[in-house]
Amino acid sequence: MIKKILIANRGEIALRIVRACRELGVKTLAVYSEADEQSLHVQLADEAICIGPAASSESYLKADRIISAAEIADVDAIHPGFGFLSENAEFAEQCESCNIKFIGPNSSTIRLMGDKAMAKSVAKKAKAPVIPGSDGPVDSETEALKLAKQIGFPVIIKAVAGGGGKGMRLAHNAVAFAREFEMARNEALKAFGNGSVYVEKFIENPRHIEFQLLADEHGKVIHLGERDCSVQRRYQKVVEEAPSPFVDEKLRAKMGKAAVAIAEACGYQNAGTVEFLVDKNGDFYFIEMNTRIQVEHGVTEEVTGYDLVKRQIAIAAGEKLDLDQKDVRFIRHAIECRINAEDPARNFAPCPGQIDLYYPPGGHGVRIDSHIYGGYVVPPYYDSMISKVISYGQSREIAIDRMYRALNEYIIRGIRTSIPFCAAIMKDPVFRSGEATTKFVGDFMERTPKDLFAPSDDL
Amino acid sequence: MIKKILIANRGEIALRIVRACRELGVKTLAVYSEADEQSLHVQLADEAICIGPAASSESYLKADRIISAAEIADVDAIHPGFGFLSENAEFAEQCESCNIKFIGPNSSTIRLMGDKAMAKSVAKKAKAPVIPGSDGPVDSETEALKLAKQIGFPVIIKAVAGGGGKGMRLAHNAVAFAREFEMARNEALKAFGNGSVYVEKFIENPRHIEFQLLADEHGKVIHLGERDCSVQRRYQKVVEEAPSPFVDEKLRAKMGKAAVAIAEACGYQNAGTVEFLVDKNGDFYFIEMNTRIQVEHGVTEEVTGYDLVKRQIAIAAGEKLDLDQKDVRFIRHAIECRINAEDPARNFAPCPGQIDLYYPPGGHGVRIDSHIYGGYVVPPYYDSMISKVISYGQSREIAIDRMYRALNEYIIRGIRTSIPFCAAIMKDPVFRSGEATTKFVGDFMERTPKDLFAPSDDL
Repeated sequence: MIKKILIANRGEIALRIVRACRELGVKTLAVYSEADEQSLHVQLADEAICIGPAASSESYLKADRIISAAEIADVDAIHPGFGFLSENAEFAEQCESCNIKFIGPNSSTIRLMGDKAMAKSVAKKAKAPVIPGSDGPVDSETEALKLAKQIGFPVIIKAVAGGGGKGMRLAHNAVAFAREFEMARNEALKAFGNGSVYVEKFIENPRHIEFQLLADEHGKVIHLGERDCSVQRRYQKVVEEAPSPFVDEKLRAKMGKAAVAIAEACGYQNAGTVEFLVDKNGDFYFIEMNTRIQVEHGVTEEVTGYDLVKRQIAIAAGEKLDLDQKDVRFIRHAIECRINAEDPARNFAPCPGQIDLYYPPGGHGVRIDSHIYGGYVVPPYYDSMISKVISYGQSREIAIDRMYRALNEYIIRGIRTSIPFCAAIMKDPVFRSGEATTKFVGDFMERTPKDLFAPSDDL
Repeated sequence: MIKKILIANRGEIALRIVRACRELGVKTLAVYSEADEQSLHVQLADEAICIGPAASSESYLKADRIISAAEIADVDAIHPGFGFLSENAEFAEQCESCNIKFIGPNSSTIRLMGDKAMAKSVAKKAKAPVIPGSDGPVDSETEALKLAKQIGFPVIIKAVAGGGGKGMRLAHNAVAFAREFEMARNEALKAFGNGSVYVEKFIENPRHIEFQLLADEHGKVIHLGERDCSVQRRYQKVVEEAPSPFVDEKLRAKMGKAAVAIAEACGYQNAGTVEFLVDKNGDFYFIEMNTRIQVEHGVTEEVTGYDLVKRQIAIAAGEKLDLDQKDVRFIRHAIECRINAEDPARNFAPCPGQIDLYYPPGGHGVRIDSHIYGGYVVPPYYDSMISKVISYGQSREIAIDRMYRALNEYIIRGIRTSIPFCAAIMKDPVFRSGEATTKFVGDFMERTPKDLFAPSDDL
C-alpha cells in the first residue's frame, strides 16, 4: 500500500500528481525551490518542504535533499514526474537503497534504456525495426560506402562526438557520399577534435509516432495506442494528437506489438513510451524509449479513458494490471497544445513575469492542465511550459475546431504566450489535412507572416 | 444556413452558446443588461448590444428590445438558453412572425407543453404513465374519497390555486382523508380565496429522472438516455448524474420509449427534456416537459459524447439528425454540481460581490462551465448559479472521487459559494450508495453539522 508520495517535481505535472493522489486518498508531500513557494502544487499538497534556492541544480536536481525530505516526512514512494530526476538511474537507485518506492521502472532499466546504443540493441533483440546504420564509428571510406549502399540512400553521416548539427552531412547517392563523408570528418575534427563518424539511413520527412505502454510488476505489458507528435519546433513537441491521422488499424497493431516487445525485452515496469520515426511508406524505426510519464500523456487519457498517473501509482503499489490489450479502444480524437511563456512573434523569446488576469477555456471537450493563476509570477528559472490544453471530440475535425475555439478564449494577460502560434497551426491547411511531418513547423514558419503570432489586445 | 445567432441570455449558458457557435464558425451577437457589461459572454461574442438596465424585467425579459437588436444586427436565429424567455410561447411566436429562427420547438409546442393539464393529456395520449388523479377540481368529498380509493393511498390533496405548500395535505388512509380534505379546502379558501382542490397519488420518496431528447424537423426523435436529478434542495437541482444508479437497461428502454412517444405526440422539434418521478418499484410518472436546453445538459454530453448545443443549431438549420437510437451509448459516468454564489452555512443566503482570486479545477475528467473570473463582480440581480463542475470517469465511484477532488481545488475568494455543501454531499454515504431520492437533501441537512459547509480559509 502507498499512503504518502513525495512529488519530486514542480509546475503542472506536480499538480497533475497531486490530483491523482487526492482522488486515490493518498497523501502528498511537495518539495519546492524558493522560487516556487507560491506555486499551486505547493498549496494543494498535504505537506511541503523547501529544498533549496531557485536554480534547479540547487533544488529539483538535488537527489540527496529530496531523499532527506522523503525520510523526514516518512513517505512510501517518490513520483519523479518528467524532466529533472525522472530518468536519472542513480536517483532511482538511491530510492531503492533507502527502501522508498520510485514510481517508474527500476534503476537498471532506466540505465539500460538511457544509453542510446544499448537501447538500440534491446530493440534489435526484440525484433523491432531500428534505423539501419553502422551502430558505431566507421573510419574507412570504402567500408562506409559499402554500408551506405547496403542500407540505401539517402544516408546521414554523423559525428560520434557530434551535436547541434555540426559534423552532420546528408548524402543522396554514392558520388555525393565520398565528398560528404570527407567533409563530415573534417567538420567533426575541427569542431570536436574527433573525426570519428557513423552512418545511418536518413528518414525523409518522417512522422514522430510514439506508443504509450503500461507494464505491471507481474510481467504484463500492454500498449494504449499511439500519439502523433510530428508537430515539433527544434525537437520540442508543440502539438500532439491521438489517434494519428496516418496510422491505420494494421500499422497500429504492428507498431504496438513492436513497442510491447521492446518493453518486455528490457523487463519494463510502470508507464513508459516507445518512440518511432515513421516514413511515408509506413516503415517505422525505433528511436528511443522514455522511461517515465510524458508531457503529452493526457492525450492518451482522453482517447482511452484511463488515468495514467493513477495507474502508475497502482502499478508501483504492486497491483496487477486489470486491463487486457483487447479492452483498449480509442473512443474519440484528442489534441494537445503546449502553451509556453514565450513570444512567438519574437523568435519564441522566453517571457516570464506576473500574470495579471487569467481565464482558462472550459466547456465540453476541453481539458486544462496548468498551475498558473491570476497574480502568479512565472519564474524565469525553469522550462517555459505553463499550460497544456487538450481538446477532444468525435472526429479529428471537431477536436481541431474545438482547440481553436479554446485557444481563442484563453485569457493570459501580463505575459506573452505561444497561444497565437498554436491557434495559427489549427487553421493551417497542411495541419488540418493530417499530412504534417516533423518538417511541418519549419515550413509553416516560412509561409506564415510573423504578425499572425502577435497576441491580440482586444481582450 | 444559420450564419449569425443572437444569444438571448447571460452567464454561463450564454458563454456555452458562444463556444458552440465559435466551433461551428457561426457569428454571435450578445445582448446584455447594464449590469453585465463586464461579463465574459459579452467580451467573447462577435458583437454586443446593451438592451437595458440590470433588472431582467427591463432587459433579458424584454422581448421587443431583443427582437429589435436581432433586426438591427441582422441575425438568422435566436438562442434563448434556459430561464428568461426560453419557454415563452409569445416570444417564440414573435420570432416566427419576424422570420427569425427561434432555436427550440415552435411556439405552439411551447404553449401546449407549458400548460400542465394539457401536457398531461399529451402524455396520456402517448400512453406514457402520468400521476393518477382527478385532473381537475373535485369539490364533493364523496367523489374525492371514491377517487382516492381508486388510485390508492397515500394521496395528496392540492389547492387548484395553490403554491408554496399551502392548501396541500397528505392522506394515508380513508379515515385521514375526510379530515385532510376538509383542512385542505379551508386552507385553500383562506390562502387563495378559492377552496377548489384536486386529488393526486402521492409518490413517496421518488427519484427525479429525466430523459434528454433530440428531435429534428423531419420527424425523427431519439433519446440520449436519462439524468438522475434527485438531489434537490427546495425543488432546485443541486447534483445531477448519468447514468442513474437506479435505472437498468430494461427501465431505460421503457422510460426512453415513453419520453420519445410524448415528444412525437406534441410534434416536438429540437432538444428537450421529459421529466419523470420514479418510485422505489421502478414505476414512473410523467411530470413535465422542458421545451429548451437544460442547465444539466452537459452531463449527457459527457456520457454520450454528443454536443447538444451544436445539435440544437444544426436542427434549427433544418439538418436531419444523423444519429439513430442504437448509436447512443453511455461511454462512462458523469456527475454535475451546481455552484451558487450563496453561503450554505447561513441558510444559503445569496452572496453576490467581487471575486478576488479565481482558480477553476482542471485535469483529467473535469469540465468547467463558468463565466466568472478573478476581478469579476457577481451581480445581485440574477440567478445565483456561477459555475457548473462536471466530473466523469469509468465508474460512478471514480466520478464521485474526482468531483470531490475538483471541488476541493476550486478557488473562489471574495464571495461565499456552495462548494463546501456539494463537497460534503460527495462524501455522504447515502449519496455514494446511489440511494438518494428527492428526500435526500432534507435528511442530509438534518444529520450534517452546519459548520461542515463553512468555507475553509486555508487557501
